[in-house]
Amino acid sequence: MGNTFGQLFRITTWGESHGGGVGVVVDGCPPQLTLTEADLQPDLDRRRPGQSKIVTPRKETDEVKILSGTFEGKTLGTPISLMVRNEDQRSEAYNEMATKFRPSHADYTYQAKFGIRAWPGGGRTSARETIGRVAAGAIARKILKEQFGVEILAWVQSVKDIVATVDEEKVTFAQVESNIVRCPDPAMAEKMIALIEQARNDGNTVGGVIQCVARKVPAGWGEPVFDRLEADLAKAMMSLPATKGFEVGSGFAGTALTGLEHNDPIRNVGGEVHTTSNRSGGVQGGISNGETIYFRTAFKPVATVMHEQDTVDTQLQNTTLKGRGRHDPCVLPRAVVMVEAMTALVLADHALRQRAQCGK
Amino acid sequence: MGNTFGQLFRITTWGESHGGGVGVVVDGCPPQLTLTEADLQPDLDRRRPGQSKIVTPRKETDEVKILSGTFEGKTLGTPISLMVRNEDQRSEAYNEMATKFRPSHADYTYQAKFGIRAWPGGGRTSARETIGRVAAGAIARKILKEQFGVEILAWVQSVKDIVATVDEEKVTFAQVESNIVRCPDPAMAEKMIALIEQARNDGNTVGGVIQCVARKVPAGWGEPVFDRLEADLAKAMMSLPATKGFEVGSGFAGTALTGLEHNDPIRNVGGEVHTTSNRSGGVQGGISNGETIYFRTAFKPVATVMHEQDTVDTQLQNTTLKGRGRHDPCVLPRAVVMVEAMTALVLADHALRQRAQCGK
Amino acid sequence: MGNTFGQLFRITTWGESHGGGVGVVVDGCPPQLTLTEADLQPDLDRRRPGQSKIVTPRKETDEVKILSGTFEGKTLGTPISLMVRNEDQRSEAYNEMATKFRPSHADYTYQAKFGIRAWPGGGRTSARETIGRVAAGAIARKILKEQFGVEILAWVQSVKDIVATVDEEKVTFAQVESNIVRCPDPAMAEKMIALIEQARNDGNTVGGVIQCVARKVPAGWGEPVFDRLEADLAKAMMSLPATKGFEVGSGFAGTALTGLEHNDPIRNVGGEVHTTSNRSGGVQGGISNGETIYFRTAFKPVATVMHEQDTVDTQLQNTTLKGRGRHDPCVLPRAVVMVEAMTALVLADHALRQRAQCGK
Amino acid sequence: MGNTFGQLFRITTWGESHGGGVGVVVDGCPPQLTLTEADLQPDLDRRRPGQSKIVTPRKETDEVKILSGTFEGKTLGTPISLMVRNEDQRSEAYNEMATKFRPSHADYTYQAKFGIRAWPGGGRTSARETIGRVAAGAIARKILKEQFGVEILAWVQSVKDIVATVDEEKVTFAQVESNIVRCPDPAMAEKMIALIEQARNDGNTVGGVIQCVARKVPAGWGEPVFDRLEADLAKAMMSLPATKGFEVGSGFAGTALTGLEHNDPIRNVGGEVHTTSNRSGGVQGGISNGETIYFRTAFKPVATVMHEQDTVDTQLQNTTLKGRGRHDPCVLPRAVVMVEAMTALVLADHALRQRAQCGK
Repeated sequence: MGNTFGQLFRITTWGESHGGGVGVVVDGCPPQLTLTEADLQPDLDRRRPGQSKIVTPRKETDEVKILSGTFEGKTLGTPISLMVRNEDQRSEAYNEMATKFRPSHADYTYQAKFGIRAWPGGGRTSARETIGRVAAGAIARKILKEQFGVEILAWVQSVKDIVATVDEEKVTFAQVESNIVRCPDPAMAEKMIALIEQARNDGNTVGGVIQCVARKVPAGWGEPVFDRLEADLAKAMMSLPATKGFEVGSGFAGTALTGLEHNDPIRNVGGEVHTTSNRSGGVQGGISNGETIYFRTAFKPVATVMHEQDTVDTQLQNTTLKGRGRHDPCVLPRAVVMVEAMTALVLADHALRQRAQCGK
Repeated sequence: MGNTFGQLFRITTWGESHGGGVGVVVDGCPPQLTLTEADLQPDLDRRRPGQSKIVTPRKETDEVKILSGTFEGKTLGTPISLMVRNEDQRSEAYNEMATKFRPSHADYTYQAKFGIRAWPGGGRTSARETIGRVAAGAIARKILKEQFGVEILAWVQSVKDIVATVDEEKVTFAQVESNIVRCPDPAMAEKMIALIEQARNDGNTVGGVIQCVARKVPAGWGEPVFDRLEADLAKAMMSLPATKGFEVGSGFAGTALTGLEHNDPIRNVGGEVHTTSNRSGGVQGGISNGETIYFRTAFKPVATVMHEQDTVDTQLQNTTLKGRGRHDPCVLPRAVVMVEAMTALVLADHALRQRAQCGK
Repeated sequence: MGNTFGQLFRITTWGESHGGGVGVVVDGCPPQLTLTEADLQPDLDRRRPGQSKIVTPRKETDEVKILSGTFEGKTLGTPISLMVRNEDQRSEAYNEMATKFRPSHADYTYQAKFGIRAWPGGGRTSARETIGRVAAGAIARKILKEQFGVEILAWVQSVKDIVATVDEEKVTFAQVESNIVRCPDPAMAEKMIALIEQARNDGNTVGGVIQCVARKVPAGWGEPVFDRLEADLAKAMMSLPATKGFEVGSGFAGTALTGLEHNDPIRNVGGEVHTTSNRSGGVQGGISNGETIYFRTAFKPVATVMHEQDTVDTQLQNTTLKGRGRHDPCVLPRAVVMVEAMTALVLADHALRQRAQCGK
Repeated sequence: MGNTFGQLFRITTWGESHGGGVGVVVDGCPPQLTLTEADLQPDLDRRRPGQSKIVTPRKETDEVKILSGTFEGKTLGTPISLMVRNEDQRSEAYNEMATKFRPSHADYTYQAKFGIRAWPGGGRTSARETIGRVAAGAIARKILKEQFGVEILAWVQSVKDIVATVDEEKVTFAQVESNIVRCPDPAMAEKMIALIEQARNDGNTVGGVIQCVARKVPAGWGEPVFDRLEADLAKAMMSLPATKGFEVGSGFAGTALTGLEHNDPIRNVGGEVHTTSNRSGGVQGGISNGETIYFRTAFKPVATVMHEQDTVDTQLQNTTLKGRGRHDPCVLPRAVVMVEAMTALVLADHALRQRAQCGK
């Protein structure tokens, strides 16, 4: 259980790193949306390994196929099945994983839960699992853009202690994509790239923070009391591999302010209701207020390091394990599109929920 | 929609601040659990207004009634309906709210979403809504304690810039309850209380951070890829009023470490698998690993302040609004039990889910 | 688990026959619908005991209270909590039930499932449980009528071997309500009433068939492949107490026809698509086609008879049990409104689902 | 929406008749179950076209592939993705369907709902959609058999007016499979085969009734009040293409009995609780009572006939349409395994639900 996300725009992902492939079934997509593989591949290309010198050099083209749910280039309203075949599987790089649990990975927890695990490549815990999310997210983004005018954009806000300065209201997709680390602050981007390269050379890894904005979300999306918009976004982010924290609007820093300092004044701006500051992050009481939604997600440093580490084997004997093979020294450049995809899935779901209950 | 939480241990809350009452229906509770109102009232008493000088002086006894689901003091396995009647309703204190949107509250967003709102007392957005959560959470805690041996404990970790020092492995319920701010660091507790009183005297408010631990959770709870334990905890916390952030284990601070520094080494300790550090926070890959689970939640300063603030009225005309009535200068002392309740609901749900699929 | 029905217009019922009351929480109701207790009570009055000489003489006024979800007579879009207090509880009539399982009741199965049961009055298995359904159904009917123009009408089609002749396209609510058995064929109604009175005098019981129509359902409601409209109606009907069968359109009798005889020809009638016969029963492939939806539900004879019957006690010893107290000799007159309520719940849910995905 | 079935043993099917294939994702399957394609193919072979002279002669081998969820021949507890490629697609046989609605098919209703439809081969309304159900059902049957000892068996009870005589307690799989119509009454089977052949020669079609039994289901499965076992079975059956009716135990015929005649006496039989008759059909109050569960499902005659029939085209002009291509004159021989599969899915789901809440 647990492989389905969303109430109305609902996805179910499947696949291990070394089986027949990975994929997703999207149920609830509105009909008559134009959709071909060309709409999905760009986001998958932003996710795939081998795209730059600071990500894993594994060669995976991750070519997506639409198996159902469209006819003559349009969605039918029936389930959309998307699949990417697995390839370039060098199981031998993982042989030691058959008998040893990798520290701070999910090897031991999967074994404890299920009594069995697919150790080659990490099985279901592999980041390949996110392919289905990104492919489905590309559909959600298309709906949001074409039918609701909503734009989603994420970028790398920090890597380790290098923090970018970004104007979240103005930053563009082109700025984010202008460098391989996907940080729209060019000076900091350069430092981040150097830091990641250094980490890789050291056989070490680094983490950081990704920020995401959703612009032009109309006021009224979100379903209190449990399915608050920020609650579903938090779940979406914390369901991504390697995430350790989430904050919306002022976040943890907002706890240092008083109420008088923190509150967002409301004004009539050209006949529309707007706040003159946005510490709320575009959500109040779980519902969008029409301002830009923004939030940050913390990604821990990648667990696979090229050094001996203490662990136990499947017989529970103490031993050590050293990472091998081709791994990301930093997951953030590839995770940007995952954050965008999960955000799009949450927003598309809430758009349909709002339409269902309130008719608009 | 959005008022149901949980898959197998499932709660549905209802109620506005000024209607007939507030309540919750719990479906999926295991049968034959001993249960009376006496099991629920203590947690409700920790939540209720008027309990100390640093919370709102409103007089609400919040006496809970079990309307169904038990027989001769034991649960039947049928839905448990719990209700608290509303009382002490001074609507006149809120009259201005009928025509003006309170800044950083959900007045405007509810109006935008539904085209209607119950303005007295905030209606559904009132913190009274959490009564159902706390009552249901008390049942979940009882199951977790009696059937699984799990203990849950939360406390106030910081108020504004006053940060407590707490040993999360050793802190006890008695220490938390030893002062009215529910901070187990006595020196900092005193400062927090003074700060909250000062804020109230200033007509201002403060926020802070609550930390929570769950001890003795067995390895194996959590349902990747979407219903990861930390993802469901994040959603649970971010569904509470006034929350702006969530972090588990090392959290945002963990992004400043390298992988080598961050990884938790695994060792055989007396025949059991344990990690010798716990930056993972008790979860790896979305599944509990047997270590203490710990996480922090950020609460913004209360939005109701006793000063004029810019806002608009329901005719969208610019105006100002000043808070009136009896409000909390700081929500954290009362929110501790809400955090515990939501944690218990998540864990009880996952305990049943693990039993369903894996038979244990 | 299992006490929630519906995806978007979602109800959760609670309550045993002898606890504090019975009730329902409705989540997902559209906002701004006018709603007071006066909208709900008429259907509850059609359900309640004591309404005529052919139903149980128990005195239950079943007065419903709206506890939440409305403000100034309109729905808020928040959960609507409805409750009816229990009264007139003569537990002593049921004392023998504490230790003996009533044949063809659910006493034994509840005991087997939960290891505990509320024996007074049947607990959760009492027909009082349907109060919540009928109250929620009244809301659903109001939405369907006011916002979609849909009308729902059920009647007693047969009691034992007495079968009515009814024109399902023309029968009216007034005709159904013109007699106490709720059969719009006056001649057969008289015979049915006599038969039910005879059964009561014999300490025996009878069953029968209820037919229901839904008129003016627009083409396009229903969610294949699993949530077909007829599949959800079947589930709704078979979730009512004492039901043993469901058929839509031609039903079981349709299996005696050939395809050529069974197919419904399609014609353009005044610019609209219509079928010139309606053996499909208004649904094709799980989706409404714009014709009248009609279906029948079989109710077994009431299990409580005033004769000694073989059974076992809770120690598994063979014994006998004779029904006591005040029971219905025939459930159908009171079940008519239950069938209508469940039909309304299914249709309202599908109306919202269609709007969510297809925007209309 | 609507393409997911089950709460804990949950399947999501996808696929149109003429796209890349059809398939299913199974989430919630217990881990460590031995499973290969060889466990699935036999049921798919019982479903596939071309298996005998009385079904459609279309050549579809329907070879299933397991794409995920297993490792070294055992289930992982992760989603199991199953796929069958489409082949032998003669779209030209369906060209007229592009512009004309087939009577008593779902062409018009899909068009009305979605504003678009995949007309070749019926798209999502094709019986190929059931491939995913049958494949997933084979897994559910394996769990039920190996872990719970439950056996499921269905057969053709009647074709048009030819009704078999079958002892539902004793009938075996071998008897059902001993002839191509899958009726264990050899004399009637011969007549059914002749009738179906005659219908085909006439360009006509016939329907009938399938009966199903589930043996050795333990007492206690089923989740009142809505997810009653018979309610979920009814939904499962009525979600199959071409079904018009469902009845459990005594069914519609039971309405002709009095309560005294209908009730099932309870006796201690060898230390176990049993009923000496089984008009309840193995369920009481929505929960299994340990007796054999049995029910019947009505299938209408196939809608595609080789005669001109009145219909309208997509411009709503009156016209006629004559069936072409290779179709089943009777769906029942192939539907037997679909009934078994859906029954298995319901029971496996309830087995896990019972384990979740009641721990056994």
